[in-house]
Amino acid sequence: MKKFEAESRLEAHRRTVDNMDAALIYILSERFRCTDDIGRLKAEHDLPAVDKHREDRQMARLKALTQDANFDDDFIAGLMRYIIEEVIRRHRRAAAEHQSGADRAS
Amino acid sequence: MKKFEAESRLEAHRRTVDNMDAALIYILSERFRCTDDIGRLKAEHDLPAVDKHREDRQMARLKALTQDANFDDDFIAGLMRYIIEEVIRRHRRAAAEHQSGADRAS
Repeated sequence: MKKFEAESRLEAHRRTVDNMDAALIYILSERFRCTDDIGRLKAEHDLPAVDKHREDRQMARLKALTQDANFDDDFIAGLMRYIIEEVIRRHRRAAAEHQSGADRAS
Repeated sequence: MKKFEAESRLEAHRRTVDNMDAALIYILSERFRCTDDIGRLKAEHDLPAVDKHREDRQMARLKALTQDANFDDDFIAGLMRYIIEEVIRRHRRAAAEHQSGADRAS
């Protein structure tokens, strides 16, 4: 392959990467809309903040998907930890907001 | 909303989260197939490993998308750093593999 062909292939790949990044951002945004609603539901209905059984099932499922996608387990585990830490931070904020609303109402 | 209704809504949300996670994993897997090929092209054609102009454009674009998705800039910036570190690790491996092939051939 000539260098200019390599550069044109590089450019095409970069357009694909840009499209994938847009997809990732919109999917993540939707995932957080969903987990934010979960946080509100848990706060309002006194449901347990952490469900170990759910977490174990979720992790086992992610591992199977990662292997099916022929992908690196450790990388995905680290990525999910990063996402889940943010979910927990937002759940705590929802619980605190619910609590301060309940305190004001009482 | 009754507690059992909240639990059923929670379960529905969890199914959505599971679907989003599968989408994230398959999109990321495809993104790495693409960046792995970029790494090979760069190594084989002596193209610069880092392109500051490309990186700046990419970051500006991600920021605009994140704002459009009404989402947290810092969270996405951290996530992209985590992904890009892995891309660089894999590019370095591709360059080393290419170099050791070239050494054997010489």
